[in-house]
Amino acid sequence: MLPEEIKKFIEEFEKLPSIGPRQATRLAFRLIGGGQAKLAEMANAVSGLKKVKICPRCFFVHSQKTDVCSICAESTRANDVFMVIEKETDLMSIERTKKYRGKYLVLGELTKSGVLEPWQKLRLNALKKIITDEMSDKMAKEIIIALNPTTYGDLNASLIEKELKNYSHKMSRLGRGIPTGGEIEFADEETLSHSLTRRE
Amino acid sequence: MLPEEIKKFIEEFEKLPSIGPRQATRLAFRLIGGGQAKLAEMANAVSGLKKVKICPRCFFVHSQKTDVCSICAESTRANDVFMVIEKETDLMSIERTKKYRGKYLVLGELTKSGVLEPWQKLRLNALKKIITDEMSDKMAKEIIIALNPTTYGDLNASLIEKELKNYSHKMSRLGRGIPTGGEIEFADEETLSHSLTRRE
Repeated sequence: MLPEEIKKFIEEFEKLPSIGPRQATRLAFRLIGGGQAKLAEMANAVSGLKKVKICPRCFFVHSQKTDVCSICAESTRANDVFMVIEKETDLMSIERTKKYRGKYLVLGELTKSGVLEPWQKLRLNALKKIITDEMSDKMAKEIIIALNPTTYGDLNASLIEKELKNYSHKMSRLGRGIPTGGEIEFADEETLSHSLTRRE
Repeated sequence: MLPEEIKKFIEEFEKLPSIGPRQATRLAFRLIGGGQAKLAEMANAVSGLKKVKICPRCFFVHSQKTDVCSICAESTRANDVFMVIEKETDLMSIERTKKYRGKYLVLGELTKSGVLEPWQKLRLNALKKIITDEMSDKMAKEIIIALNPTTYGDLNASLIEKELKNYSHKMSRLGRGIPTGGEIEFADEETLSHSLTRRE
């Protein structure tokens, strides 16, 4: 009953994260309702993403003329400190703090299985190669594993730590505690314990 | 810090229903992660929607060679019974019941203000014109206002009923009551009252 073009659209978009078949259907109708010119703009916005490059060192997106992204190319950032993060949006949050002046490795979204995908292993290997090729003692100064402090984030962090510990003098994770603006009364036990043992 | 192409994508997609800036950002990264070929497919899926036509009688989408959609063209459907619905997806739900054999008017998503948009008034006028031009006594047999039975759906239904009552012998709305599979214990008072007064 629906035109083929709408079915095709739904088929493509329902697979995307947090868009199911229902939202994809609604999206199609909304886009059609927006008119021809808007539709052309949206299609261009999607195909424009083809021009985005992925840095072969940290795997973050960029649009530099060089192969390497501007963060990796920045000479004022520490070359021997690396932060392993899961998602590009995590990197953006960290950058917004303006407190971190080292390099990154974007690992990509981790599965719940606690096993790294083959392409994620390749990314870890890329980091190992950077360290062994470029560090004078073949060791980084510090590697910060910045995964979400959830049960399965912690599991993955331990696995990655094991993989990398021979490549760095120091391994660390993000500090845990009561978030700024949070209340002691409502903090969970785990968080409160951390804030006690890691008191500043 | 993000490439222009990603910013452009976010700008276009964050305005869509139930996609905010955060989801649009995540979507961009997911699409880029999918690779060049996938991106081209997605862009095609969007621009393919340009080929979808909108029926000038009922305003549902279609891809017929004719101007008019297949529902409006179907000769075995009653020509003098019309159902006013809000969204295309509502029409699809009604069609799936296979119980309705009349025509439709897709009004488009109603605002919470209880005021019809200018283009929605044009759609109501299109229906009035069909009735006065094509019905022998310039009256439809029945017009069913099939809006969601919510507070503001009911408000809009009353307004539309007022607009159309001089164009139809009978005005009706969808029956209310306990949904099949529902439990009396958990039905709200309003629903239960309806199921009593409209008992079958």
